[in-house]
Amino acid sequence: MRHIEIYDTTLRDGAQSEDMSFSVEDKLRISQKLDFLGVHYIEGGWPGANPKDLLFFKEAKKLSLKTSKIVAFGSTRKANHKVSFDPTLQSLLHAGTEVVTLFGKSWNLHVKDVLGVPLKKNLELISDSIAYLHSKGKRVFFDAEHFFDGYLADPDYAILTLGAAEKAGAACLILCDTNGGTMPWQVKEIVKAVQKEVKTPLGIHTHNDAEVAVANALMAVEAGVSQVQGTINGLGERCGNANLTSILPNLKLKMQFDCISDEQLSHLQEVSRFVSEIANLSPNKYQAYVGNAAFAHKGGVHVDAVRKNARTYEHIAPEKVGNKQRILISDYSGRGNILEKAKEYKIPLAPDHPRVREILHQLKDLEGQGYQFEGAEGSLELMMKKAIGGYRRFFKLVGFRVIVEKRKEEETPISEATIVVDVNGQIEHTAAIGNGPVNALDTALRKALQKFYPSLSEIKLLDYKVRVLAAQDGSASKVRVLSESGDGHIKWGTVGVSENIIEASWQALVDSIEYKLLHDEEV
Amino acid sequence: MRHIEIYDTTLRDGAQSEDMSFSVEDKLRISQKLDFLGVHYIEGGWPGANPKDLLFFKEAKKLSLKTSKIVAFGSTRKANHKVSFDPTLQSLLHAGTEVVTLFGKSWNLHVKDVLGVPLKKNLELISDSIAYLHSKGKRVFFDAEHFFDGYLADPDYAILTLGAAEKAGAACLILCDTNGGTMPWQVKEIVKAVQKEVKTPLGIHTHNDAEVAVANALMAVEAGVSQVQGTINGLGERCGNANLTSILPNLKLKMQFDCISDEQLSHLQEVSRFVSEIANLSPNKYQAYVGNAAFAHKGGVHVDAVRKNARTYEHIAPEKVGNKQRILISDYSGRGNILEKAKEYKIPLAPDHPRVREILHQLKDLEGQGYQFEGAEGSLELMMKKAIGGYRRFFKLVGFRVIVEKRKEEETPISEATIVVDVNGQIEHTAAIGNGPVNALDTALRKALQKFYPSLSEIKLLDYKVRVLAAQDGSASKVRVLSESGDGHIKWGTVGVSENIIEASWQALVDSIEYKLLHDEEV
Repeated sequence: MRHIEIYDTTLRDGAQSEDMSFSVEDKLRISQKLDFLGVHYIEGGWPGANPKDLLFFKEAKKLSLKTSKIVAFGSTRKANHKVSFDPTLQSLLHAGTEVVTLFGKSWNLHVKDVLGVPLKKNLELISDSIAYLHSKGKRVFFDAEHFFDGYLADPDYAILTLGAAEKAGAACLILCDTNGGTMPWQVKEIVKAVQKEVKTPLGIHTHNDAEVAVANALMAVEAGVSQVQGTINGLGERCGNANLTSILPNLKLKMQFDCISDEQLSHLQEVSRFVSEIANLSPNKYQAYVGNAAFAHKGGVHVDAVRKNARTYEHIAPEKVGNKQRILISDYSGRGNILEKAKEYKIPLAPDHPRVREILHQLKDLEGQGYQFEGAEGSLELMMKKAIGGYRRFFKLVGFRVIVEKRKEEETPISEATIVVDVNGQIEHTAAIGNGPVNALDTALRKALQKFYPSLSEIKLLDYKVRVLAAQDGSASKVRVLSESGDGHIKWGTVGVSENIIEASWQALVDSIEYKLLHDEEV
Repeated sequence: MRHIEIYDTTLRDGAQSEDMSFSVEDKLRISQKLDFLGVHYIEGGWPGANPKDLLFFKEAKKLSLKTSKIVAFGSTRKANHKVSFDPTLQSLLHAGTEVVTLFGKSWNLHVKDVLGVPLKKNLELISDSIAYLHSKGKRVFFDAEHFFDGYLADPDYAILTLGAAEKAGAACLILCDTNGGTMPWQVKEIVKAVQKEVKTPLGIHTHNDAEVAVANALMAVEAGVSQVQGTINGLGERCGNANLTSILPNLKLKMQFDCISDEQLSHLQEVSRFVSEIANLSPNKYQAYVGNAAFAHKGGVHVDAVRKNARTYEHIAPEKVGNKQRILISDYSGRGNILEKAKEYKIPLAPDHPRVREILHQLKDLEGQGYQFEGAEGSLELMMKKAIGGYRRFFKLVGFRVIVEKRKEEETPISEATIVVDVNGQIEHTAAIGNGPVNALDTALRKALQKFYPSLSEIKLLDYKVRVLAAQDGSASKVRVLSESGDGHIKWGTVGVSENIIEASWQALVDSIEYKLLHDEEV
């Protein structure tokens, strides 16, 4: 079985993504996670370009990594610098990694228009820089920037740049589709042509500007390269880099190459989520293999078939990448989906019960108003129990008032909530302040109820999302609040919709509390 | 030049996407936009499965489309129905389209496990159904569901299903990678093999479960198919269908095939945004070709190179797909980006001015707090003018109070805002109610200021987005508000960040008003 080396550049090229900025601490945490996933190389950053990156290399030495090697990245020397005085090369040595990746120009246009040096001079820059780092005991990978564009413009020159790197001692020549515009069959042909000219192992680094980055990386592997570069979730400048969360399962499950273990692959979704979390980006639910929707079935026909045999609409077993099958509730749903959910929630419901149709209607109506239960199954369960049985009230709202007051331009406003609830005839009136109006209301409500239901102190709000629906109505738009709560044992999601964000949040808060109390009673 | 037919299934397969639900009106509007883009076929829905879809076909007849033909979609007859009594076939006739697409099973596993009929019987279902529709004057396309999985499991049987459709009069045989798990080289090999067995033109329909849907469609075109099916923005069940917004430019700009005109292609971004808008999904900014980030440059090295020659980091000219180059402001930015922006905002700023560094620091600091100027250049311009000159105050806040009060469980709360502002020493005290607290505050502020600045009545809030940052802090999390305003002439975006949503909204509102007043003065 051929072995493929996985080279992760989430921390360097991935950090070039719009909206992205990693702290040193973020980078260290991601490095540990990448090691856990089993990638072979972690490109940690560009020590010459960024003082933050230099600090990272210092701290990264303290990590005890099992499989991954940290790699420093930088450019070939400047034309007017000697290698021993070139700040980039010196900072690369200073980073103290065993492996260094050096990028250089392979496209005559770049040599001319960006470097502004003669073509021959560029070959010297490549050769000098690699030979110097090699002489200092480094394993050097050569990133041939814009290799495919360069090859199409002037194949002989592009090959000369690889030859210069090879002769200077590069351990791997990485062919980069830096602008991401190359087509899959071109990648294959060019890799094949390169293999006739150089003996050093090849790598592939692709970008997604034509939405074929993953295919391009795989085509190169088919053609014989032994190293694949990419990022978790395809993060990266412009349209992103080749996505390792798709490349890894494709290599292992479709092409049967050896890269990471089956056990490591089964944590793929977890690693993907972790990086989204650290990057503070919402996970892409439609993402191949690891997205929440990747094995979700909605249309009635599909749901029926999948219940008979999962292979009918699933290209792999979702568990292999740590994902799972989901049956969606939506207005495309049929009775089957409702019955499936009732079973899951342990609500007794005969297939021919008239309530099944009623619940479907109610769902459709709520979805029309903007509710969405796909991330808020706690609210769905409550709604179904309200319709069929198994629900009871724990408290009634008499009223609340939330006040946000700003008394000086430069000060944050003060938020205060007062609330009156009725618990089995007993009236409780409390007040609380908070960081904002929702937090004040949340705090006041729990304060009022905890006296009666002490277990509410276990609830922790884990996630709180606001989505503006139909944003064209400006500040009068409807909003949907999705909240996720946990009590240390289980987690549940709830939803609220209103033109008033306080009301939408209130609905989600009340559902969250009722869900907890109902479940405590059932246990 | 070979001609490729474009078959759009946004309204049918795209509507299977999680979170998606199109009204009849939505479908009609999207149809007109697809016709404007120049696709050849618009799959409008499944009239047999959904009464909403039947209504669509009725209404769609009233559209005057220039290039697109509306297509009805459905399955082959049920095993126990005669063609003339099969409800699906009858509803397809009833839809009244010139072209009908019929899907049937090509994978022995599906015939056995889902249809539950003998393999031979399935061939009859295909053949009878197509022959029947053909005899009624329809042009019939045959969607060979799961063709690639079927071919890998039993190539002879998969080819037999195509043969049955061909013999019955199908005008095009579409090879579907329904589960989305096929690799690009497999698609090419299998298309080549099929071409040896049938004479009817072939089509390709792929899904993105392995993140290679676009590449798979292009490989099939390379191998000789003449019809490509896909959806706008790659909408579709699970991980989505092949994305036409990537396939179209790849076909035209990379492969030089004839499909839509250059002029039509230059509206690609507009069509992509339109569909996102109707689908009520935020556009994916990293999307190839049409995303906001697709031609955005952030790293200092790239920005410098792109300023010298755009081709250095752009695989196509963005204008060809209606997109444009963007230079991003972020902590990866250098002085060059700031100077570029100053020029854009017509702020006089010498390259060596000490304020350039100050602005960079301030930006970095604000970004650390959660501000983001990439969608809020109005706030960026104000910040730069505050630092360099060209800014003045139009009013001061003395104080505001927002009250949200709920007096009954089943009622929406009432929101009221009171505000005191000081305009050149004149104190104005007003109050307003609104749909929610932000709307009340927005209304009160404008009411207070319009007396002094009547042009504020031209401002319309076009978009209002709330993003929870670091959601793990629950209801006490920081939020970022991005608002977009317009006055009929120009549009501008502003931003606010706070743990208090009212305060974050307030910052964005104030910036929006100040931006308008400053620009009015400059004109």
